[in-house]
Amino acid sequence: MRDAYHEELDSISDGLVELARLVGSAMGRATTALLDADLALAESVIAADEKVNNLHHELENRAIDLLARQQPVATDLRIVVTSLRMSADLERCGDLARHVAKVARLRYPETAVPNDLHPIVLEMGQLAQRLVAKAGLVISTKDVDAALELERDDDAIDALHRELFSHLLDDRWQHGIETAVDVTLVGRYYERFADHAVSVAKRVVFLVTGEHADGFTQEPVAAE
Amino acid sequence: MRDAYHEELDSISDGLVELARLVGSAMGRATTALLDADLALAESVIAADEKVNNLHHELENRAIDLLARQQPVATDLRIVVTSLRMSADLERCGDLARHVAKVARLRYPETAVPNDLHPIVLEMGQLAQRLVAKAGLVISTKDVDAALELERDDDAIDALHRELFSHLLDDRWQHGIETAVDVTLVGRYYERFADHAVSVAKRVVFLVTGEHADGFTQEPVAAE
Repeated sequence: MRDAYHEELDSISDGLVELARLVGSAMGRATTALLDADLALAESVIAADEKVNNLHHELENRAIDLLARQQPVATDLRIVVTSLRMSADLERCGDLARHVAKVARLRYPETAVPNDLHPIVLEMGQLAQRLVAKAGLVISTKDVDAALELERDDDAIDALHRELFSHLLDDRWQHGIETAVDVTLVGRYYERFADHAVSVAKRVVFLVTGEHADGFTQEPVAAE
Repeated sequence: MRDAYHEELDSISDGLVELARLVGSAMGRATTALLDADLALAESVIAADEKVNNLHHELENRAIDLLARQQPVATDLRIVVTSLRMSADLERCGDLARHVAKVARLRYPETAVPNDLHPIVLEMGQLAQRLVAKAGLVISTKDVDAALELERDDDAIDALHRELFSHLLDDRWQHGIETAVDVTLVGRYYERFADHAVSVAKRVVFLVTGEHADGFTQEPVAAE
């Protein structure tokens, strides 16, 4: 079964890389839409999520089909099951990009994020995009060292998230409750997006090394 | 393969029912801890999540082992793959209960939720607990009608969530930003918990009927 099987597996892996590319692009554009109050861009991100969902379903069906036809065992089986999970992680990243775009749309023509928080949110968006780009690379290269790098990037997002909260909880906050709610949710969307990207990389590490640092969990270490 | 296979599958299904019971109980206790500012109860919910994670991993491993040994195809294969997803949904419910408990712990000895919002949050907590209890029932009975009921309960949670937001965004809000942030996050935790419970029920419907209303998705319809 080796050849046909591995060709199909490579093709699923290529699909996952494409999925990572799509959701990274979506989060980048959602961040721009959020900070620029760009309604058309927000709408395009929201609409494009269907493409992500379709690819996710296609990859799921191909993986299940592969299980049925090739009946892999041991490592081969783990790879297919893991690809199902990675597809789910990436699909969820697409949802979170869509959520950010929806906040942008909701507040248009205002910007949901006050000017003084733009640098933090911009950096969270850029880091999130980079994290999922690296996750895509890790899927295609199986590079364990690169995978471990994602943990550091995720720490950087967590630090920005804490910084966002310190602004929110500062007595001098003067942007009102609605903006506080928006910023709270947006911050969580970026954090969850990053968690799912890290989760993808961890799954690759586990496949390659057979070891997992903090549990081969279906969900990444949850955002607190 | 029929007998051994179906016995093992039943045992996984029993495990999923137990998982649903554990996370329902956790969310009930987390809600009490939140509203009563009960630190000991909050701590116990946080500690008990490990049991949920362990059971989740055990069920995952048993499902993968079953795939490897029995090599099911067609519907049987779908059932095992779906059980992996249901376990992930329920594990995530456990995380969300833990998140609620952590908010309670963070604000102790204060209560994170102001008194005037207690009835709404209490009802969200009760509905969330009921939703996952019904999801557990649906897993064991494969009752499609009961599964469809969950959608209605989820609508009720969404309505409460909107009510929570209308309080947050009311000009007369006087509980400050920190409480607004807490309430925003807690509201989202209940909503996501409910989404995952609904997702479990939908997966059962799909297995039984072969039809899915809005996509056989890995993630439920996302909270907006």
